[in-house]
Amino acid sequence: MGNSDSDLLKESFEATHFQLSGHGKRNAGVLKEAFDQVEDTMPSDHYGQGEVIEAFQLKMAKLLGKEAAVFFPSGTMAQQIGLRIWCDEKKLKKVAYHPLSHLEIHEEDGLKELHHIHSVLLAEKNRVIEFEDIIALKEEVACILLELPQREIGGQLPTYETLLNISNWCREKGVKLHLDGARLFEVLPHYKKSAAEVTALFDSVYISLYKGIGGIAGAILAGSRDFAEQSKVWKRRHGGDLISLYPYLVSADYYLGKRFDKMEKYFQDARELAKQFNACEEVSTLPLVPVSNMFHVHFKQPKEQIASLLAEVQKESGIGFTSYLQEATKESCYFEISIGDLYHVIPKEKIDSAFLLLNQRTRL
Amino acid sequence: MGNSDSDLLKESFEATHFQLSGHGKRNAGVLKEAFDQVEDTMPSDHYGQGEVIEAFQLKMAKLLGKEAAVFFPSGTMAQQIGLRIWCDEKKLKKVAYHPLSHLEIHEEDGLKELHHIHSVLLAEKNRVIEFEDIIALKEEVACILLELPQREIGGQLPTYETLLNISNWCREKGVKLHLDGARLFEVLPHYKKSAAEVTALFDSVYISLYKGIGGIAGAILAGSRDFAEQSKVWKRRHGGDLISLYPYLVSADYYLGKRFDKMEKYFQDARELAKQFNACEEVSTLPLVPVSNMFHVHFKQPKEQIASLLAEVQKESGIGFTSYLQEATKESCYFEISIGDLYHVIPKEKIDSAFLLLNQRTRL
Repeated sequence: MGNSDSDLLKESFEATHFQLSGHGKRNAGVLKEAFDQVEDTMPSDHYGQGEVIEAFQLKMAKLLGKEAAVFFPSGTMAQQIGLRIWCDEKKLKKVAYHPLSHLEIHEEDGLKELHHIHSVLLAEKNRVIEFEDIIALKEEVACILLELPQREIGGQLPTYETLLNISNWCREKGVKLHLDGARLFEVLPHYKKSAAEVTALFDSVYISLYKGIGGIAGAILAGSRDFAEQSKVWKRRHGGDLISLYPYLVSADYYLGKRFDKMEKYFQDARELAKQFNACEEVSTLPLVPVSNMFHVHFKQPKEQIASLLAEVQKESGIGFTSYLQEATKESCYFEISIGDLYHVIPKEKIDSAFLLLNQRTRL
Repeated sequence: MGNSDSDLLKESFEATHFQLSGHGKRNAGVLKEAFDQVEDTMPSDHYGQGEVIEAFQLKMAKLLGKEAAVFFPSGTMAQQIGLRIWCDEKKLKKVAYHPLSHLEIHEEDGLKELHHIHSVLLAEKNRVIEFEDIIALKEEVACILLELPQREIGGQLPTYETLLNISNWCREKGVKLHLDGARLFEVLPHYKKSAAEVTALFDSVYISLYKGIGGIAGAILAGSRDFAEQSKVWKRRHGGDLISLYPYLVSADYYLGKRFDKMEKYFQDARELAKQFNACEEVSTLPLVPVSNMFHVHFKQPKEQIASLLAEVQKESGIGFTSYLQEATKESCYFEISIGDLYHVIPKEKIDSAFLLLNQRTRL
C-alpha cells in the first residue's frame, strides 16, 4: 500500500465531524473531566495502599464476583502474572490459548522471555476455541486462557454452553481456567449474564479499564485472596507497583460509572450498524451478527483500492468509518469497529447517506 | 514498638502545620495543578508514540547528554531492563551493586525472579562503593550499578574522582557502568557538575521523576539509541508500554520546569537543617554534612522512646519532623529528611524553637 493511500485515509478520517467508533479523542480532556469531580485534597494511593486504590479494588472484586481484585497498569502485566501464578502452583510452565491471543502476538513474547512459559495454541486462527479443542489437548498445561470476545477475529464468542463445558472439564482435570476479559462487560448483553455469572466459570479474570469503559489505561486482575496477594508480589517485580496510580484509578472509576450501563446500548448499536455494512453488496462484517460492541468490516478488494475509496466516502459524507485498513489477504482487507458514545449522536440520515455512498463506490 | 507509639507519632505529624521534608501532600491537587496548564485537546501518547511522550523523551535525552531517553512507569522496571540489556549483550547474567541497592532490597527480587540475573554485592552496607571495591571484584560481571546518592545510608556519595576512576576501569575492562540516578539532579550542586557531565561517565542512566522533581510517578532510562530501542521492547514485555502515560509525562514535565533550578536551594537548606540536628546533643545526621537534599537523622535511644518524645515535640512546636521511625539497632533509630518546597516557607523562629524543644527532650 502506497503511503499516499493510507495517509489520505487517515487524513480524511481526522477531518470528519462524526465517527462510527469509540468514545471520542483520547486527549487530556478525558483525564480532566474525570478529575473535575475530585477534590484537590484526595490523597494519593501509595504503592498499592490507600483508600483510592483499595476502594476501587473492592468494588471491582464485588462486580466480578471474586474474593479480591488488584489494579494493574496494563493487561499485559496482569495476564502474564496470572498465568505465572498458575504455572508456579502446578510446577508446569505451560499454558494453552488461541493462536491470536494478545499474549502470543502483541507482547514481544513477554510470557516466554520473562516467565519462560510455553504456549500451546488451541484452534485455528480464524475461529474461536471449541470444547472439542480442549478435549483434543495432547499436552498437559497449567492453565487455559479464553479471550471473550476473541478480538482479532472480529470479537467472536463461543456459546455459553461451550464455556460451561470447558469450565467443568478444567475443574475435573485440575487445569486452571483464566479469562482474558479485556472486553468482558461488552459481551454480557449477548450472554444475558452478569459479570459474576460469567467469571464464576473461571479461576482468574482480567478486565481492561480503557476499552468499552474508556478510562485512561489500566487493568484489573481478580481471583481468590491468595491469588491476589501473590499477584501483588509479581506486580512489584514487574515494576508495576507505582507510588501513585491514582490518575488511572480515578478515571477508571469515573468512566465505569458513566458507561457500565451503556453496554447493552453499544451492543444494540453494533448490531444495527453491522446490518448497514452487510446491506452493501461488496462489504460484510465478521461476525455477521455482532455479539458485543465490536466487529470487523471486510472488503473483497485490495487494501490500497479500498483506502482511496473510503477516503472519498469519508470526505463526501463527513462520517468517519476508519483511519486505517489491515490486509486480510493480498486481495482483501478489513478494519475494526468498536461502538462507544460517538455512534448514537450521529444523525440517522447522515449515516444512511454515507452508507448509500459506500455501497455505490464499493460496487464499482 | 507498640502500635500506640508509632500511631501517636504519625498522628502528631499529620496534625502539624509545617513539615521539614518534601513538597507537600501527594494528593489529587498535584496532578490537577499540572493539568491546569494543559488544553483539553492535547492528544494522548499512544503506546510510546506521539508528541507528548516523544518531546519529553527528547528533552530528557538532551538534559542527560545521551542519544536517547525512554519514559518508564517506574524505576524498578527501567533499571531491571537496563541491566538485562547489558547482560544479554555480554551473554553473562551477573551484575554488581551495593548491598542496599533498590534492586536488592525493594523489588521482591524481580531482577532474579524475572531476569535470572545474579547480583554481586560490593562494599559493606554502611558505606559507599569505593574504587578499591571495584578493583577487588573477583567475579566477572556484565555491569556495575552505582547509586548516587546512596539512599539507604542517608544519601552518601563517593568523590567525583572515585567516579572517574570507576568509569575508566569499567571502560578498560569492558564492563558497563549504569547510574541509579533516582536523585541525580539532587547531587549536582555538591559535585558542581551538570547532569550531562556526570552521566558521561556512565553507559546508561536512570532518573526518577517524583523524588526531588515531585512528579506523580515515572522514570527515565537513557543511553545510546540502540540501548533505548531495546529497552522499548522490554518495556512492552514488562507490561509498561501503556496506551496512555500522559498523566505522568505532563506532571513530570511541569514539575521539572518548576523545580530543576531549585536543587541548589534544597541542597543548601539540607546543610542548614542538618546543622540544627547536629547541634542537639543526642542527635546526629548521616552524612554529617549532607551532599544532596537528603540525610538521615539518628537517635541513640530506642525507637519507641523517640517516637513518643518526637510526638510531643511535634505537638508542641507545630513542626513536623517525621511520621515514622526506623530501627537502626534495638537501641537506636532514625528517619529520613528530603528537603523540598516545604522547608523554606517555615518561619525561622518556629524552627528554632522546635529544635530547642527537641534538644531538651532528647537530653532527658
